[in-house]
Amino acid sequence: MLEKLKIMKPYVTILIFLGLLQLFIIPALSEKKNYDPCCSYPCQHFGICTRIGFSDGYTCDCYRTGYYGDNCEIETWKHWYSEIIRPSPYTVQAILTNGKWFWQIVNNIKVLHSFFMTKILQLKAMSPVWPEAHNTAADYTTFDGYANKTYWALTIPPVPKNCPTPAGVAGPRELPDAETLVKTVFTRTEFKPCPRGTSVIVPFYGQHFTHQGFKSRMPDRSMTWGSHMVDGSHIYGETLEKQHALRTMSGGKMKMQIYNGEEYPPNVKDCPGIYMQYPAFVKEENKFALGHPLYGMLPSLVYYTTLWLREHNRACDIMAELHPDWDDERLFQTTKLIVLGEIMKITIETYVQHVSGMHFQLTYEPHLLHDLPMRWSSSRIHVEFNTLYHWHNLIPDYFLIGDRNYSLPEIYYNMNPLLDHGMNVFTTSLSNQIAGRGAGGRNMPESLHRIAIETVKMNRKVRLQPFNRYRQYFRLPPYKTFEDLTGETKFAKVLSDIYGGDIDAVEFYIGIMVEKRYKSKMWGITLNEAISSYSLRSVFSSTIGSPEYWKESTFGGKVGFDLVKTTNMQNLVCRNIQGCPKIQFQIPEDVNEDKDPGMIYNDCEQLKAETINQKTEL
Amino acid sequence: MLEKLKIMKPYVTILIFLGLLQLFIIPALSEKKNYDPCCSYPCQHFGICTRIGFSDGYTCDCYRTGYYGDNCEIETWKHWYSEIIRPSPYTVQAILTNGKWFWQIVNNIKVLHSFFMTKILQLKAMSPVWPEAHNTAADYTTFDGYANKTYWALTIPPVPKNCPTPAGVAGPRELPDAETLVKTVFTRTEFKPCPRGTSVIVPFYGQHFTHQGFKSRMPDRSMTWGSHMVDGSHIYGETLEKQHALRTMSGGKMKMQIYNGEEYPPNVKDCPGIYMQYPAFVKEENKFALGHPLYGMLPSLVYYTTLWLREHNRACDIMAELHPDWDDERLFQTTKLIVLGEIMKITIETYVQHVSGMHFQLTYEPHLLHDLPMRWSSSRIHVEFNTLYHWHNLIPDYFLIGDRNYSLPEIYYNMNPLLDHGMNVFTTSLSNQIAGRGAGGRNMPESLHRIAIETVKMNRKVRLQPFNRYRQYFRLPPYKTFEDLTGETKFAKVLSDIYGGDIDAVEFYIGIMVEKRYKSKMWGITLNEAISSYSLRSVFSSTIGSPEYWKESTFGGKVGFDLVKTTNMQNLVCRNIQGCPKIQFQIPEDVNEDKDPGMIYNDCEQLKAETINQKTEL
Repeated sequence: MLEKLKIMKPYVTILIFLGLLQLFIIPALSEKKNYDPCCSYPCQHFGICTRIGFSDGYTCDCYRTGYYGDNCEIETWKHWYSEIIRPSPYTVQAILTNGKWFWQIVNNIKVLHSFFMTKILQLKAMSPVWPEAHNTAADYTTFDGYANKTYWALTIPPVPKNCPTPAGVAGPRELPDAETLVKTVFTRTEFKPCPRGTSVIVPFYGQHFTHQGFKSRMPDRSMTWGSHMVDGSHIYGETLEKQHALRTMSGGKMKMQIYNGEEYPPNVKDCPGIYMQYPAFVKEENKFALGHPLYGMLPSLVYYTTLWLREHNRACDIMAELHPDWDDERLFQTTKLIVLGEIMKITIETYVQHVSGMHFQLTYEPHLLHDLPMRWSSSRIHVEFNTLYHWHNLIPDYFLIGDRNYSLPEIYYNMNPLLDHGMNVFTTSLSNQIAGRGAGGRNMPESLHRIAIETVKMNRKVRLQPFNRYRQYFRLPPYKTFEDLTGETKFAKVLSDIYGGDIDAVEFYIGIMVEKRYKSKMWGITLNEAISSYSLRSVFSSTIGSPEYWKESTFGGKVGFDLVKTTNMQNLVCRNIQGCPKIQFQIPEDVNEDKDPGMIYNDCEQLKAETINQKTEL
Repeated sequence: MLEKLKIMKPYVTILIFLGLLQLFIIPALSEKKNYDPCCSYPCQHFGICTRIGFSDGYTCDCYRTGYYGDNCEIETWKHWYSEIIRPSPYTVQAILTNGKWFWQIVNNIKVLHSFFMTKILQLKAMSPVWPEAHNTAADYTTFDGYANKTYWALTIPPVPKNCPTPAGVAGPRELPDAETLVKTVFTRTEFKPCPRGTSVIVPFYGQHFTHQGFKSRMPDRSMTWGSHMVDGSHIYGETLEKQHALRTMSGGKMKMQIYNGEEYPPNVKDCPGIYMQYPAFVKEENKFALGHPLYGMLPSLVYYTTLWLREHNRACDIMAELHPDWDDERLFQTTKLIVLGEIMKITIETYVQHVSGMHFQLTYEPHLLHDLPMRWSSSRIHVEFNTLYHWHNLIPDYFLIGDRNYSLPEIYYNMNPLLDHGMNVFTTSLSNQIAGRGAGGRNMPESLHRIAIETVKMNRKVRLQPFNRYRQYFRLPPYKTFEDLTGETKFAKVLSDIYGGDIDAVEFYIGIMVEKRYKSKMWGITLNEAISSYSLRSVFSSTIGSPEYWKESTFGGKVGFDLVKTTNMQNLVCRNIQGCPKIQFQIPEDVNEDKDPGMIYNDCEQLKAETINQKTEL
């Protein structure tokens, strides 16, 4: 017996060892993750991931992803076919930014132009998904989050709570704080001009237009006080009380005041009920009363407001002559509709057109959508839309207005650059000064870092998914290396250090801003793909353009409707600024595409090979 | 010369006479109307009429009416063709309310049923027009009226201001005051039971469901404080503060209290922040805290609220067991989505089904619309929808609850009928008592006249176009005589006296309510045509049913989604009321269609011939 035991000793030892292994070591190896398995985005193709209890299990809801299976990994035939006939973003961009002569012909043949314009809107203005199930109210779908419009929408759900890393499972456990990050990524080493010859009047137009919708609630900006619509609230105020305070309440007109012989928005003292945020140093006479409480911050915001108010009162005169039987209210309401229509038209045909860099001429012709399943009045602003619109790289450090040079900090809450020189000189000055280069990072004036820091903080608070996930959402292949992303090596190394060498950890805002510029555009392809959807949908889904609104009777008859349909940036300026100054969004002599060609890459490997020899200076 | 003059004398006299005629009399005859020419609806097919200055001239905007010409009188080929292939309302109703055996087969073959359900939704749930250009903000199209949701929408623009008569140009210059009108048209001479065997539980279901949306602002009801959505605000409150006051804030549950051993909504003293409108005589212990401040008015409103609150807490238990990792907020939000889904399902499949009188079984299967251009989240409540839903004729004068008879005035703000007998007895009592006949007028309890009077006043304040204009809007031929309208002669005479013998002057609310009943329905064909559009759109356009929401993950996984998809009125009651009482919307033994057959008339002349011999007692 003892013998037998002795012989068995080694086996017993092994058994005991295996027992211990089973008891302590194997469980330790296969230990429960203790975090949400959805952190690693196991559901492919943006299926909705839900953790099962406190376990490592999860379910994927693949409904309408075009895929099925436990992880939404098997493609349906229908989706396979639809993807085959749907052109990739690269193809669409390549088609629209090449073949100038072809597009010039298309632009001039109405029926051809309408065909392509409709196609672009079908591709772009009907996405992203609608009505949005995701928003800043919660990580999961709720009814309250949809019903309560103080929440921003989210294009895709946030990173789950309590993941191993801020990006889910990729990248470092901790990222640099927002201040350090912004300083490293955005600090302007030297002013880099926009290679497309974009003038400074462009970012200011964008700022004036977009902030009627981008209205973040303090303190953390994760909610909004806006209506999500192109509603003219930056001109007319967002409440009836404000609107009434800004109106003369007679003949449909808006209040104005004369300054150096020119018409400008009224003073706050003449508009009881208007609350404006002015710092103490602003002189009483320079406190303009505007639709948005912050629009007294920059002379450029007052410039555009002035332009639209002058246009309102001018159009109102035309309406009053045509309709002597109309009262103040009807004149005001109809003129407001005309002005809103003009805003849409100029925004699409001049502003979005310039940003798009296409040879095809975009037009605001909402009737093209009247027989299509357009999602009228459905606009809801997404955090991602707001985030990617932080174009502070475009702002130069100095502004030459007339014969005077103002530094950027000098123009905050300072109306002298506008009032001393007048509307005419202000127009030509901003039209002739080049804006900064947007794409590629490291081109932001230091006084604007504050806003970038707040953006990073807000994005982190709402836990936006990382940049590469959004690439996939917009049907773009995720980047594999930091060199892929930036199109060079030096800055790529800086970014790689920040994100622990893991490209999948790059934050949305950072990725969008540092991505290499796409040929003939101001930005990289990801920003272009995203913004074209968000912006075309925002403008084209407006109630104004819907079948019930977009007709003569809405705009006070044929005269008013024609006024909307024939307005452009230049004739708007000429109608309302003495001397008809030339306004230009692009300075032809400053276009520098040859020296700064931008890049098109479908293939990450191809890029990798090329970037080795490339030394883009930063 | 004198001779000549003498001969000419008669001619001169004639000339002088003609001169005078020209100077004074002809101008008097062809005098300017001094009122808006749009008063006579000169623009056909609902083209938009705009007066030119103060003249008798006008323009018609025919855009998308399917017609063109100065008065939108010439049909386009496209419209002509589409009308030829589109069945008339009479045809659709005839098909759906006949051939019971055919529909029984269809109801049981999934693919066939889905085909017909989709067709019905395409015909009905996508109209009326959207987004609505008309609302109670102004007589003309404005942006503010759309952006400000405190205005009701209007299906068609109002009667212009300062017309010769309230109906435009038809009918008498003055109509009887609202009090006299209501007394004459609505006073119940004797209780007329609903020939369809509708039980009293039906109008109470309707009241509980619809008043989450029908929230008139006082004093004149021409504005609303509702969200226009099926939002569950009658259960959960319309603000976050109210919702929080009604929640236990633990485990996702709603507050309840025990009364005679049964669960009921909580008392106001336990819900600080809830304001309820109770008259002084209500005992403190009977003051329930509910989502809607007026829902303490009737025991039936508390009954349905109790049912849904019990269901909420029951479903919440299921969710909590499935998802031990979820916090109070997520359990609450997901359960609310389940309850909202169940509300939609029961409303369509039991309530709307009963009202429709169809043999075809309606189903709430929003996925049928996921590939169609459905107008998700677009619902806006129309004044006309609110108006036609005044179904007070259905309310009897007495309620037999258990063994006690309560008069109608006795049940106002009196919870004893519910609390003394309990939920089970209350269910069976209301299920076994017949409701009043809706169509045909003169069947409204006197204590409800007040509401009818307010409705007439509100309709007159917003100047709703007359009934016959709405008939045309809903593709029904306008009635030619009062006999056409009522299907008899005696009451027709009464109405004719009120409206000066002019059928085109009959007000919308009155026409809708007195119209002869359509075979197998509770109401006339005009109400049926209108309500099917308004109600199917309201429910089916809900965010809940949209492609992004209507999937498992929204409802807490397969279990929650199945709960929604398998709920019906009877199993909801059995799950939540002890003893599983039978709930019925139709009392089979009280169906009396043979004695009160209702009428179908396509041809007004045919009706005229028949009505001469007809003596429907009123």
